Amino acid sequence: MTQRLCRTFQTAPVAVASDDTAKYLRSGLTASGFQAPDWLVPDLEDGTAPAKKEEGMENLLALLPEYAPEFSGEILPRIEWAYDAPATTERGHEQIDRIVENAGEHVDGIVVPKVGRVGDVESALSAVADAEREYGLPQGSIEVAVIVETARARSDLREIGALGNGRSEDGSDTTARLAGLVFGPVDYTAELGGRSRDGDRFEWPALLEALSNEASANDVVAVGGPFDRLFAERAGVSFYNGSEYAEQVEREAAVGLDGSWSLHPKQTTQANRIHMPTPDELERDVEKIERFAEAKASGTGAVSIDGQMVDEATLKNFQNTVWTARVIADRHPEQAEAVYDEALLERARSIELR
Amino acid sequence: MTQRLCRTFQTAPVAVASDDTAKYLRSGLTASGFQAPDWLVPDLEDGTAPAKKEEGMENLLALLPEYAPEFSGEILPRIEWAYDAPATTERGHEQIDRIVENAGEHVDGIVVPKVGRVGDVESALSAVADAEREYGLPQGSIEVAVIVETARARSDLREIGALGNGRSEDGSDTTARLAGLVFGPVDYTAELGGRSRDGDRFEWPALLEALSNEASANDVVAVGGPFDRLFAERAGVSFYNGSEYAEQVEREAAVGLDGSWSLHPKQTTQANRIHMPTPDELERDVEKIERFAEAKASGTGAVSIDGQMVDEATLKNFQNTVWTARVIADRHPEQAEAVYDEALLERARSIELR
Amino acid sequence: MTQRLCRTFQTAPVAVASDDTAKYLRSGLTASGFQAPDWLVPDLEDGTAPAKKEEGMENLLALLPEYAPEFSGEILPRIEWAYDAPATTERGHEQIDRIVENAGEHVDGIVVPKVGRVGDVESALSAVADAEREYGLPQGSIEVAVIVETARARSDLREIGALGNGRSEDGSDTTARLAGLVFGPVDYTAELGGRSRDGDRFEWPALLEALSNEASANDVVAVGGPFDRLFAERAGVSFYNGSEYAEQVEREAAVGLDGSWSLHPKQTTQANRIHMPTPDELERDVEKIERFAEAKASGTGAVSIDGQMVDEATLKNFQNTVWTARVIADRHPEQAEAVYDEALLERARSIELR
Repeated sequence: MTQRLCRTFQTAPVAVASDDTAKYLRSGLTASGFQAPDWLVPDLEDGTAPAKKEEGMENLLALLPEYAPEFSGEILPRIEWAYDAPATTERGHEQIDRIVENAGEHVDGIVVPKVGRVGDVESALSAVADAEREYGLPQGSIEVAVIVETARARSDLREIGALGNGRSEDGSDTTARLAGLVFGPVDYTAELGGRSRDGDRFEWPALLEALSNEASANDVVAVGGPFDRLFAERAGVSFYNGSEYAEQVEREAAVGLDGSWSLHPKQTTQANRIHMPTPDELERDVEKIERFAEAKASGTGAVSIDGQMVDEATLKNFQNTVWTARVIADRHPEQAEAVYDEALLERARSIELR
Repeated sequence: MTQRLCRTFQTAPVAVASDDTAKYLRSGLTASGFQAPDWLVPDLEDGTAPAKKEEGMENLLALLPEYAPEFSGEILPRIEWAYDAPATTERGHEQIDRIVENAGEHVDGIVVPKVGRVGDVESALSAVADAEREYGLPQGSIEVAVIVETARARSDLREIGALGNGRSEDGSDTTARLAGLVFGPVDYTAELGGRSRDGDRFEWPALLEALSNEASANDVVAVGGPFDRLFAERAGVSFYNGSEYAEQVEREAAVGLDGSWSLHPKQTTQANRIHMPTPDELERDVEKIERFAEAKASGTGAVSIDGQMVDEATLKNFQNTVWTARVIADRHPEQAEAVYDEALLERARSIELR
Repeated sequence: MTQRLCRTFQTAPVAVASDDTAKYLRSGLTASGFQAPDWLVPDLEDGTAPAKKEEGMENLLALLPEYAPEFSGEILPRIEWAYDAPATTERGHEQIDRIVENAGEHVDGIVVPKVGRVGDVESALSAVADAEREYGLPQGSIEVAVIVETARARSDLREIGALGNGRSEDGSDTTARLAGLVFGPVDYTAELGGRSRDGDRFEWPALLEALSNEASANDVVAVGGPFDRLFAERAGVSFYNGSEYAEQVEREAAVGLDGSWSLHPKQTTQANRIHMPTPDELERDVEKIERFAEAKASGTGAVSIDGQMVDEATLKNFQNTVWTARVIADRHPEQAEAVYDEALLERARSIELR
């Protein structure tokens, strides 16, 4: 995990076929409570139809100055890019340029999809660095998150992750501009030819382990892929498919992904909650830290607490729980107050973390 | 996935203890309908006893001119080779030489087992290139598929896969001779010391993900390993173990392997069918493509079809289904006609694929 | 797998809060029968409290000369080390120095925890080589096993494993001092931020596959991580949690790990037994080898035995079983006699292994 809050990565089309083409973008920028995503990703790529992309860019540039200053999370528009389609990547260059020129101070980064091998990722980082320089923004102020959704990017994942430390393949400095690795399972499954006979797609568990590892090894954020079966139908009734999505988010939390992709405010609510320690979890871990501290004071290295051998290593897992709860309480006090009682939060705050 | 049909990789011993020592080889070369493998692999390695190998080579060289010209798929004999046994690899060199000299125009490639690190694979590619040159065959006309069944080959899988693009480690050109990566779980499990207490072997899911990825990243074919418990016995009756094999093939299809290994005509039938879209699957995906095209015409980027968010990425998965059905209809019209009705095939043919 | 017996890797604190601070260390050094670990790891790191570490080192140096000469397995103390904490690593250097100076002839190696990238592992190997030279021990007599428990070590696993072959990144010789790769899931899960909502931690199956592979590719030992829920409680009764531990060890055996981590003599007994072929398994595999030899003599390459296609590759798995049983019978005759009858052992001994 990284010391950065990204429980939710919510994409929102920048323009849709509607009287109010910016409605989903505006609703993302003004969401509150558990519906507010940690990262909002205005989508100029697949979520917006080709015929609407120009209008979408205008929506984005119009709404950012109005709403971004009050937005509680980070904003990273997704541009067009494709390692195997130069015309698409050329549009991506223009989109980067336009966003940075006109709204550079309102965005935290750019999301680049369909990157190929590490050299392709380096060229995306350079494009952002060039725009930053051209329009006089502070160096490194606009970060990049890439969508890992091609066989080439998976093959080069270790080298791509290392760009998070500012290490490029040829030794040149990339200013640690890479901020996140995000899984894109739909394109990825299509590239590999994975079959989905019953509509359930393969979940790529080994890729998720690697993504979590390379993100942690290089201190960048790791995010799971979208869950696109938003609604289920059974016995004639269609309903929000909240159980299956929650199970996917729980699997992503187990493997150490920092956050999950959201396509809908209800998904954002669920992912914000699942990537937040439950009150029981927080209480359990606070108590174990307290009891371990007492045991250590009496000269014990590893102690048995409720049948579990606890040592310095175990302790770090409990500290992760406390750290996450405290960061949420700082950034989103209304979320923490809705979930934890004040006494528990006080105990969590009084623990010394490394 | 790659743009090449290899649903089935059927090995056949080149000589067995029988009055007609070539019977399995001949039956592979003359199989028809769903029993015809996409790739037939006459086996000079483990499937043929040491005492029968010379007779097997003679069978192979005698039967190829007779049957290969009419064979509907591709033919790639498996030779002997072992990264840790120079005498075996020396026999492999002689077998390559003999096959290319005497039947080079009748084989599509050579299957090389038990390769070690990437340097060992490069030496196998060179051996084939040398024979090709010596006997005046067009450069690159004889490809190579390797069996990934050693810890060293798994460790170097990314570099080995890259040879599919004609990139050797030292920069020399390998003419993209590498055509396939095939899993060999039995040798592999023995090398790693995997235990099989109840007869069920571990399935190496992370390796299969990596094999599928590196094949797709380099446009070569990926094939799963043999299922050797051909027959099951229960309550006194022995029978063809078709359910377990089908489940293995379905798992391989889910992870994006192009094809499955077959040891028996019944397995070939099953794998040919499972790696072929079902009529329901084809109809579902054709319909989703048609409906997405309508939505796109009306300016929508992502649309909800039967509760699923569909966008350009989702679409690629549907296109894979259509592509596979169309290729099978071209190469094996009798198979397509047995499975799809004419109207559905017509709709599939009228879709524009990228 | 490697040709070296390490079914069990038992850590024992070198000092605990007790009248007899060395009691667990002494009990490890004097264990017999199935309680005797193949590798005993006196623990100067997390298992021993900071306030007890000096006393623990004195216990270790006092007990080794007394018990090590009679110990049936290998002894590898675990020192302190951390890629991200120079003060900790500095203590590790001093601990290596003190152990090698005062008890170098009584230890087989050093266990180094929390290593980072391959360069960090190389510096640990150098530290041991320096101490060996300084105190006049034969070169390479003190090996090193590393705990893979950081994202960086997982990222560099392939390069770290290659040090087992004496190949350092910069080409300098490391004398093949690396003897083992051991998983450390608790620290690892904390680094990646893996969540454990219900107390069950994620098992990192892809990492285990890679660990087993890189160990086998470089002929070093692979060992799974500790199972720390030693005791379970249900309906008011607390008891040794033997079922869950056994299941973990069985999963580790399936994926080809040579051995399992033990925190308790009961765990050592179970892991020694599970990593030892059962009598049924040994009998089954001895019989298949015998029947295959008969078939081969009659000119058959692959034969069907009890519904399974058996060939040279399958045979290697059976030979692993026989090899392991024979090594245990050599080193721990009392263990072999407790499990196998003499006639079966005789058949196993008469098989020719490669």
